[in-house]
Amino acid sequence: MSNTMRLYDLAGANELARFSPYCWRVRLALAHKQLPVETVAWRFTDKAAIAFSGQGKVPVLVDGDHCVVDSWVIAEYLEDTYPDRPSLFGSAVGRSLARFVNQWTSETLHLAIARAIISDLAKILHPQDMDYFRTTREAAFGTTFENLATAQVANIEALQRVLQPLNSTLGQQAFLAGDTPSYADHVAFSAFQWARVSSPISLIPTNSSIATWRERMLDAYDGLARATPAS
Amino acid sequence: MSNTMRLYDLAGANELARFSPYCWRVRLALAHKQLPVETVAWRFTDKAAIAFSGQGKVPVLVDGDHCVVDSWVIAEYLEDTYPDRPSLFGSAVGRSLARFVNQWTSETLHLAIARAIISDLAKILHPQDMDYFRTTREAAFGTTFENLATAQVANIEALQRVLQPLNSTLGQQAFLAGDTPSYADHVAFSAFQWARVSSPISLIPTNSSIATWRERMLDAYDGLARATPAS
Repeated sequence: MSNTMRLYDLAGANELARFSPYCWRVRLALAHKQLPVETVAWRFTDKAAIAFSGQGKVPVLVDGDHCVVDSWVIAEYLEDTYPDRPSLFGSAVGRSLARFVNQWTSETLHLAIARAIISDLAKILHPQDMDYFRTTREAAFGTTFENLATAQVANIEALQRVLQPLNSTLGQQAFLAGDTPSYADHVAFSAFQWARVSSPISLIPTNSSIATWRERMLDAYDGLARATPAS
Repeated sequence: MSNTMRLYDLAGANELARFSPYCWRVRLALAHKQLPVETVAWRFTDKAAIAFSGQGKVPVLVDGDHCVVDSWVIAEYLEDTYPDRPSLFGSAVGRSLARFVNQWTSETLHLAIARAIISDLAKILHPQDMDYFRTTREAAFGTTFENLATAQVANIEALQRVLQPLNSTLGQQAFLAGDTPSYADHVAFSAFQWARVSSPISLIPTNSSIATWRERMLDAYDGLARATPAS
């Protein structure tokens, strides 16, 4: 494998606005494994730039001759290719249970956060992405961004119910994975990093267990996530 | 510790109808650790029978001179007291992530299942429990059992969205914990065992990944869960 990997990383109009939660999972996993990476700013409609990967979505990780896509597949690739580095999963059971956190984040948490932030997120996109994003996402939600914006307060309230198990877990332990963060934390935190980069709204009470953990995650890995500006 | 522990276990009018998901977590954990137990049928209003535990809920586990309450505390007690038996968590990370599954099951999954089954569950209770149960649960739900029964089809539909991350995870691996079940599986499965003992309705498509896993869990530990009759 090469010394420095390359990651195609979703960006907004401002190329510093790296907002993709799936790309953040990979960046945090790479930092956890102490593997350097160069990121390449990429937009939704830059399909040609990643055509070599055989598909049209990021994250795309290039490691020497290897090209790996899909954040979960990348995490397993990193764990299995670099077993001498700090573990992302801790054990076989840890890997299996991290997958549940992965699926819960992607299929439940993301949906609830998206309903609260997507109208703000639409505004930070590169102009070339705006039509694509609105068309695909409004179809997925079955409503307009304007309607979602109108319901923002109610959507933030609904999010609190979704967050309850995460909040109560983090009331008992510093990280999802225990005393130190690992891949399950990367995954769940990346959803909040997505919100932080995309929207100025506050999703959670500042005195909640999730808020305290989010601060810890912003500080982790030499402040990697905090170095990207909030919206 | 004694040879055989004693577990106070919630029962319906039929004392074979052991429906508590929290008690099932403990019974499966004990079976996993190959520890024999005698169960004592208990009803919600039998507060005097467990007054010695210093509180009014089951599961209550008596192990020689030790009395342990709360299913999560009991699981940690069993893991730490009997470390030579098969592990419930697999590793420290496995224990921490199992707690998230525990909280998600208790705070999200149970609520969604309860809305679908509680009007049926109310019918299998011991007569002495019926008033207590209706009063406390209708207050918690903010509606009557009759209204929940009327909305049963819609509530089963809403449950499918809650189940999506569990279903997609179990589409990738045989058990939440990987190739073999452990405590995270005991916790999540116990919610389905609760439904199975309490209600004749079908909660999930028979060809789903959850349904296949549920069958595996009914067979596990020499068919322990299957031996309790379905409603």
